[in-house]
Amino acid sequence: MKRGSRVSYLEELKKILSPERVSTNEVILDQHSKDESYHRPSLPDAVVFPISAEEVSKVMNIAEKFKIPIVPFGLGTSLEGHVIPYNGGITVDFSLMDTIIEVFPTDFLVKVQPGVTRSKLNQELKKHGLFFSVDPGADATLGGMAATNASGTTSVRYGIMRDQVRDMEVVLADGTIMHTGNLAAKSSSGYNLNGLFVGSEGTLGCFTELTLRVYGIPELIVAGRASFETVGQAVDAVVSILSAGIQVARIELVDQQSIAQVNVYSGTDYLEVPTLFLEFHGNEAGLMQDMEFAKEILADNKCSEFKFEKDSQSRNQLWEARHNLAYAVMRAHPGKKMMVTDVCLPISELANGIESAKEAMARYELPGGIVGHVGDGNYHALLMLDVNDEEEMKRAESFNSHIVEFALSKGGTCTGEHGVGIGKMKYQSLEHGNSLHIMKALKKTLDPHNILNPGKIFNMN
Amino acid sequence: MKRGSRVSYLEELKKILSPERVSTNEVILDQHSKDESYHRPSLPDAVVFPISAEEVSKVMNIAEKFKIPIVPFGLGTSLEGHVIPYNGGITVDFSLMDTIIEVFPTDFLVKVQPGVTRSKLNQELKKHGLFFSVDPGADATLGGMAATNASGTTSVRYGIMRDQVRDMEVVLADGTIMHTGNLAAKSSSGYNLNGLFVGSEGTLGCFTELTLRVYGIPELIVAGRASFETVGQAVDAVVSILSAGIQVARIELVDQQSIAQVNVYSGTDYLEVPTLFLEFHGNEAGLMQDMEFAKEILADNKCSEFKFEKDSQSRNQLWEARHNLAYAVMRAHPGKKMMVTDVCLPISELANGIESAKEAMARYELPGGIVGHVGDGNYHALLMLDVNDEEEMKRAESFNSHIVEFALSKGGTCTGEHGVGIGKMKYQSLEHGNSLHIMKALKKTLDPHNILNPGKIFNMN
Repeated sequence: MKRGSRVSYLEELKKILSPERVSTNEVILDQHSKDESYHRPSLPDAVVFPISAEEVSKVMNIAEKFKIPIVPFGLGTSLEGHVIPYNGGITVDFSLMDTIIEVFPTDFLVKVQPGVTRSKLNQELKKHGLFFSVDPGADATLGGMAATNASGTTSVRYGIMRDQVRDMEVVLADGTIMHTGNLAAKSSSGYNLNGLFVGSEGTLGCFTELTLRVYGIPELIVAGRASFETVGQAVDAVVSILSAGIQVARIELVDQQSIAQVNVYSGTDYLEVPTLFLEFHGNEAGLMQDMEFAKEILADNKCSEFKFEKDSQSRNQLWEARHNLAYAVMRAHPGKKMMVTDVCLPISELANGIESAKEAMARYELPGGIVGHVGDGNYHALLMLDVNDEEEMKRAESFNSHIVEFALSKGGTCTGEHGVGIGKMKYQSLEHGNSLHIMKALKKTLDPHNILNPGKIFNMN
Repeated sequence: MKRGSRVSYLEELKKILSPERVSTNEVILDQHSKDESYHRPSLPDAVVFPISAEEVSKVMNIAEKFKIPIVPFGLGTSLEGHVIPYNGGITVDFSLMDTIIEVFPTDFLVKVQPGVTRSKLNQELKKHGLFFSVDPGADATLGGMAATNASGTTSVRYGIMRDQVRDMEVVLADGTIMHTGNLAAKSSSGYNLNGLFVGSEGTLGCFTELTLRVYGIPELIVAGRASFETVGQAVDAVVSILSAGIQVARIELVDQQSIAQVNVYSGTDYLEVPTLFLEFHGNEAGLMQDMEFAKEILADNKCSEFKFEKDSQSRNQLWEARHNLAYAVMRAHPGKKMMVTDVCLPISELANGIESAKEAMARYELPGGIVGHVGDGNYHALLMLDVNDEEEMKRAESFNSHIVEFALSKGGTCTGEHGVGIGKMKYQSLEHGNSLHIMKALKKTLDPHNILNPGKIFNMN
C-alpha cells in the first residue's frame, strides 16, 4: 500500500474514533502481530479499539473504501494464526467492548459484548446459579470463541460453541449491522445464519454482540481420576462408558508425558501414567448410580486406580491443572513455540488414531504429550518446537499431516475445535472436496473485496 | 412454458431415468399437488422417482437447461405448502430412496437415504438399543425433516433436527454432488454447511443421503399426565420445572379443547382440562429423584392431579394420542383444512403469548385448540377452516398474524419447527430485517436461476 493512502485512512479512522483509540504504537502493533502458536508473526498497520457496533461499521466502511484488511482480535489466544495480519491492515481489538449486557435467568440466556472472557462471564453467572459451559483451555473472549467455534472439556455433555449461540449482532464487510438469530430456543425461519457465522474466523463479519445459552449449575458435581497402564486401555474405557449411556460431563485423556508436566507446573502428585480426568453432573441419586456404573466399567477396562476429587477445592485443582497443561508445557520449553494438532475422529476410530499418532511421534523423533477431549473423539498432540530449526519444523509438519490424513481417511476432521486459521488451510481441499467451492462462493458473496481476515481458512485467488 | 419444451424435457427425463419412473399420470400429479395444510394445491408438470444421487444430479441438469422448477418431495406432510409446485416443473419424489444404509452403534450414528421415515428408522435402531430422537407428529421422511428443520416433543432434551445432522450428501442446482459435513462429533473446519442446508426447504439443494446422530435407549422411561385448572398454571409449572434444572425429556401442553379431541379419536378417558404430558429419561435412581422433585413443583403450581403412565403400553398410548392429535382434529372436521400456527418464544414470554393467543382466538371467533412443545417455548393453535369461506380465511390469517407479531415483538420466531414454505413468507422481512438480504444473496449464489423450490421462504424477484 502506498504511504499516502495509509496516512489518509489513519486520518479517517481518527476522525470516527477518538485519536487515542487508533494506535500505531510499536508495542501495540507487536502485541497484535501474533497468537499463542508457532505461526510467524506479522504486524498490522494500525490497531483500533471500538466501543460500539456503529464504530465497527464505520471502520468497515473505511476498510472497504481503501480495500485494506480487517482482522478482528479478542485476546490473541488462537492456535492456528487466526489473528495474525499477514496482509497488514487494521486490527480491530474488542477489549473495550467487554460488558455483560444482561442475564435472563428464566430463559437461560445471557447477552454479552464480544470482548467478555469466559471466566468473567462465569463469575457473573454464578450469582444466578448459572454457568456458561464452553471452556477451551485459554481464558479466551466469547467473540473469539464464536469465531473459531471453540469447545473444550464439557462439549461431550453440553455441546460446542455453535450450540450455545442463539443470536449475534454482526457487522458485515459493507458496514451493515445485522442479527443472525433470535431469542427463541428453536426456529425454522429462514437460513441458519447463526451456524454460518459461528466458526467463520473473522472472514465473514465482525461480531459485536452475542446472546448465549447458559445452564443451571447442577445439584452435584463429582470429579475423578482413573489411571491406566496404556493409552489404548484408557480410550477403550471411554468408548465403554459412552456406549453404556453414562452421561459424563467431562472425560479427558492426559497421557504419561502430559501428567508429568502437570505435576511440575501445578504442584500436584498425580500418578504419572495414562489418566482419564472425569466429571459427573446430576442430581445426587442419579449421579451416584452413574458413578458406581462407571467405576465398574473402568475396572473392567483395566483401570489400575480410581480416585475421587469430592471436595470442590481438589476438583478445581484438577481442572485448573488440565487447563494449565498447555502453559505448563510452554513453561518447560523456554524459547520454543507450540504446535498443537487437533483432529477429531469418529469415536470408533479414536484408539487407532491415537496409537498411530504415538507411533508417528516416535518415528519423527518429536517428544511431546497427547491430551484430548476423548468423549468427542478429539485429541491433541502438543509439540514444542524451535521455529528457527527448519529441519525440525519440517518433521513437525510431516507429523501433523500424518495425523490429519489418518483422521480424514476415517471420516474425521482436520480441526475439532481450534479452527483453520492458516495452519489447516492446506488440508481444506482434501477434507471438503467440492464443497470447498461452495464455501468460497459464500465468502465471495458476503465479502466481495476480500477485506475480512484475508488469507485465512482459504485463499480467494 | 411452451408445450414444445415440456415435451423435450420429459423425453430427456425418460432417457436418464427409466420411463416408468417419470410420471405425468393425473393421479400421481394430484398426489404431489398438496401437503397437509390449508394451502391451495397446484399440479407439477411431472413427477420423477430417482434411485440415486447421480440420477438426481442428471434431473437437476435438465432442470437447469430448461430453467424449470425442481420441488423435492418426501411424504407431503409439510404444513406450510413447502412441497406445492406453484410454478409447475418437476417434483422429485424420494420414496424409492428409502434404504437405511448403515448403523454405526459405537459412533451413535446412522446413514440413511432421504425417503426413510422416522418410524422405519426407529424400528431398525431398536435392534441396536438405539433411537432417533426427533419426532414431529407426522411419520415424515428424514429428508423432509431435515429440509424443514423439524423438531417435536423431545427437543427440550435431545435438540432439533439440525442438532442431529452430522453430514448430508446434497445435489446442488448445477448438478454438483457434495457433502456438508463429516462423521466426527465436532469440527471447526470451514463454514458450517450442515447448518445452512438443514432448514433450507429444498431451496438450496436436494438431499440424497443423511448421516444422523442417534441415542441409546435410556435405562428407564416414565411418563405422566398433570392436570391443571388453567393453561396459565400449566405453563407456570413448566417454567418452574425447567428453572429447577429437572431434565425432562418431553413436556407438552394439551389444552382442554385438544384433550377432548384426543379422547374422541384415541378412545382415552383423560380428564378434559389443561394438561401437561411429561416424560422422564434416565437411570433409575436419578429419574426417581427428578420425578419426586417434579411432583412437588407441580403441586406447588396448583396441579390438580398427576397420573403416572408406568407401563410401556399406556406410555405408548399417551404419546400416540399426542401425535395423533392433528389427525384427530382433522377427522372431527371433514371437508375442512388445517391451519396450525407455530411461533416459538423465549420461555419467559410463553404464558403471555398463549394467553394473548387465547384472547385473540375468542375475538376472531375461531374455535380451536392449543397444544405445544412448551419446554421449548413453542406452541401451536390448531384451526380447522373452510378454505372456500373467504371471510373465515381472512379472520384466520389475521389471527395468525396477531400471534406472529406478538412472538416477534418478544424476540421469538414466526415458526419454531414447521418452516416458512409459503405460509410464513410474509413475516420474513419483519423477523429477519436486513439479514433477509443476506439469505437471498446466499440463495442466489447457490441457485442463480432460481430453479430450486422457487417462491418458498422468500421471492427472489
